[in-house]
Amino acid sequence: MALRAGDHSQAAMTGVKEKVLTLDTMNSSIRRVEYAVRGPIVLRALELEQELRQGVKKPFTEVIRANIGDAQAMGQKPITFLRQVLALCAHPDLLNSPNFPEDAKRRAEHILRACGGHSLGAYSISSGIQLIREDVARYIQQRDGGISADPDNIFLSTGASNAIVTVLKLLVAGEGRTRSGVLIPIPQYPLYSAALAELNAVQVDYYLDEERVWALDVAELRRALRQAREHCRPCALCVINPGNPTGQVQTRECIEAVIRFAFEERLFLLADEVYQDNVYAEGSQFHSFKKVLTEMGSPYAEQQELASFHSVSKGYMGECGFRGGYVEVVNMDPAVQQQMRKLMSVRLCPPVPGQVLLDVVVSPPAPSDPSFAQFQAPTRPSQELGLAPDMFFCMSLLEETGICVVPGSGFGQREGTYHFRMTILPPMEKLRPLLEKLSQFHAKFTQEYS
Amino acid sequence: MALRAGDHSQAAMTGVKEKVLTLDTMNSSIRRVEYAVRGPIVLRALELEQELRQGVKKPFTEVIRANIGDAQAMGQKPITFLRQVLALCAHPDLLNSPNFPEDAKRRAEHILRACGGHSLGAYSISSGIQLIREDVARYIQQRDGGISADPDNIFLSTGASNAIVTVLKLLVAGEGRTRSGVLIPIPQYPLYSAALAELNAVQVDYYLDEERVWALDVAELRRALRQAREHCRPCALCVINPGNPTGQVQTRECIEAVIRFAFEERLFLLADEVYQDNVYAEGSQFHSFKKVLTEMGSPYAEQQELASFHSVSKGYMGECGFRGGYVEVVNMDPAVQQQMRKLMSVRLCPPVPGQVLLDVVVSPPAPSDPSFAQFQAPTRPSQELGLAPDMFFCMSLLEETGICVVPGSGFGQREGTYHFRMTILPPMEKLRPLLEKLSQFHAKFTQEYS
Ligand SMILES: Cc1ncc(COP(=O)(O)O)c(C=O)c1O
Ligand SMILES: Cc1ncc(COP(=O)(O)O)c(C=O)c1O
Repeated sequence: MALRAGDHSQAAMTGVKEKVLTLDTMNSSIRRVEYAVRGPIVLRALELEQELRQGVKKPFTEVIRANIGDAQAMGQKPITFLRQVLALCAHPDLLNSPNFPEDAKRRAEHILRACGGHSLGAYSISSGIQLIREDVARYIQQRDGGISADPDNIFLSTGASNAIVTVLKLLVAGEGRTRSGVLIPIPQYPLYSAALAELNAVQVDYYLDEERVWALDVAELRRALRQAREHCRPCALCVINPGNPTGQVQTRECIEAVIRFAFEERLFLLADEVYQDNVYAEGSQFHSFKKVLTEMGSPYAEQQELASFHSVSKGYMGECGFRGGYVEVVNMDPAVQQQMRKLMSVRLCPPVPGQVLLDVVVSPPAPSDPSFAQFQAPTRPSQELGLAPDMFFCMSLLEETGICVVPGSGFGQREGTYHFRMTILPPMEKLRPLLEKLSQFHAKFTQEYS
Repeated sequence: MALRAGDHSQAAMTGVKEKVLTLDTMNSSIRRVEYAVRGPIVLRALELEQELRQGVKKPFTEVIRANIGDAQAMGQKPITFLRQVLALCAHPDLLNSPNFPEDAKRRAEHILRACGGHSLGAYSISSGIQLIREDVARYIQQRDGGISADPDNIFLSTGASNAIVTVLKLLVAGEGRTRSGVLIPIPQYPLYSAALAELNAVQVDYYLDEERVWALDVAELRRALRQAREHCRPCALCVINPGNPTGQVQTRECIEAVIRFAFEERLFLLADEVYQDNVYAEGSQFHSFKKVLTEMGSPYAEQQELASFHSVSKGYMGECGFRGGYVEVVNMDPAVQQQMRKLMSVRLCPPVPGQVLLDVVVSPPAPSDPSFAQFQAPTRPSQELGLAPDMFFCMSLLEETGICVVPGSGFGQREGTYHFRMTILPPMEKLRPLLEKLSQFHAKFTQEYS
């Protein structure tokens, strides 16, 4: 009964109409969106899980998801204090329970007082609860050695994803050769390529240097920018630091060089810093773009425009399901900031439980608080590995072993090189056999196809 | 120090550069977005609240927000069972507490088993937790007298807002005279005009008939469509039923006529049914578009494309802050539905606590459950009123009385008529003096300016 496009006379005759909304008539920008982290490999993984549940025999008994940084799905336990505060806020009758520590109760009361109707069930103001933005500002100030942060420059969001897309949305404009270009690292986190496709902006790739452990090289930025200027209007530069999927942590010198470059070339800076609490390598240290920019002094400190993103999904808490995050904007044109406020207000507000979690994350119990001892950051690895071939490798790996990883093409890679990306969040007792299976599979695969 | 656009030589000389991102360079579609529910009146209300906190003397002691349908901000208490389940899910240690009813515990365990890592802190699959989509499907089936619903056609979302924008995003395409047009009611809920501006689609207004208590009239749809076809490509029709801001509940005959119209004119139907549990007027009854469409039989039942939206923000629960909602798509082209799945996966997943609430809302305690008696739907009014003049009236009202309402222009109104829209969610003891103040102000205002 399927009809070809345009075949309306026949449609009328048989009484069967073609769909109004088809691949041909739909928004072509959406069709161009690719999304690796949850692409065909993940869809197949879902099917395999269903088949296993239905008792279908497979060479493995469970699917292991190493495709997405989702700590709790991998068995990491949530931090008790965070969840106590949340339960108290959700069900304030518990404030009378003797089974909750005093500091959790105080915190919950403090947050509830700042909520409309003293309830999580009220919409908050669109940029997020004032009190929580103030706590975020204090957190940033401490992180950055005292450099001040203004709560009015902080917008809470539905995960960092939502904040990133909002800022990109403000930036993109133009058609043809004046279309906005946005520089993104390759390999990247695929939200960026997806959002740029959706917004019909030009994705300008700059390659991280695999030979130097995926370092960012300003000469490469310059090359990418020069080429891009021939066909679009580059207006922004995205940096992911610490890197996903590379795990690279940028040096202070590198960040300074990037800021100078952005300033000279008039690029708005987007710093994706959601992994700021996931730095493990010896000698590595996280420097925020805001701090470096401010310490560089004039003209950067007062002029370079910057948006910095953070999330409750990563770090030691790994609370992905709550979709909490924020963006701090620096040196943004006040009129544009007003537009950003308006844009966020159209979606009413970010989820309030995610705002609550963010509040506890940015102001955890102090040493004098009863929950201090219990509130530990179970440090866990989050760097990523790099290896060989691609989609076929990943699909075969999934079918034979149940291990779900992402082909490198989804993040971007230099032509002729092939990678896959896996997260290593599974607990030790799962990770060891996983790596063994993987290594066996890899040996067999390369033998078979080389 | 502000420089004019293009004044780059002077900028270079003084070392002061203009911002990269300005009103001139930013995304002009975003600039065109207007958002009434949280526009200038609400910004001023926020300032007034701040001034009151700082002890500034005003002719009122508190600001009353009748601008947005936010029941709990107005003092409505959340439903205990909902919050018990949520607290148990957030902090599963409570499953051992004797202070929670057994059915709440069973429900929480049931939901947690369906979560990654048995935790709310894991990302769910992008369309929402399978178990919850199954419960939503069962709910729809019951609501619609047994007409089946498929969990794969249900997508959970970050409030209904997010689902509405997602479906609109799929629909819009084209440039100039082939730009997509979307028919929306006037007055409308301003998310629609905002989203269409953002997506650069054409807003096609059809007017509800104030003389007939804001009824929808197919002759008016026909007029709007005919005129729109001269300058764009109308592809979709939005209906809000029960209406916001009008409170109108459509009759079954009206819905049938709308469906026939959409089918004949090849329009994708969007039915915003978030107020389906807020029907109070005697003789009024809610009919879902899905049910009417299915019962109309061939060719509508198998061919007319429809997306129906619902939310946990409205109804008797009024849990706005959690941002839970869903869309059910009917007769959508499977290839497009796949695209929709992809698009949602870019944002990872809707907030899991909102998904949990939705689950309880769609499958509340049964008569045999311990929490049944306690789980009552405190029915409350939610229709809206219609009155005279506009922005000036609303701003004066706010300044003099602290009552925050929305000018009719934000929802749309026939030229030469003026309205404002207020929600009547405040509890009785606030609502009575509010209405008295309002009526005094109105008398004074009309006397003064007529
Ligand atoms: C680099 C990077 N940015 C942003 C995000 C989005 O995180 P969320 O939207 O959950 O806050 C992720 C998630 O994996 C990420 O890896
Ligand atoms: C008609 C209508 N649709 C959709 C929404 C959005 O609701 P939410 O995004 O909170 O689910 C509202 C909120 O007031 C509304 O009135």
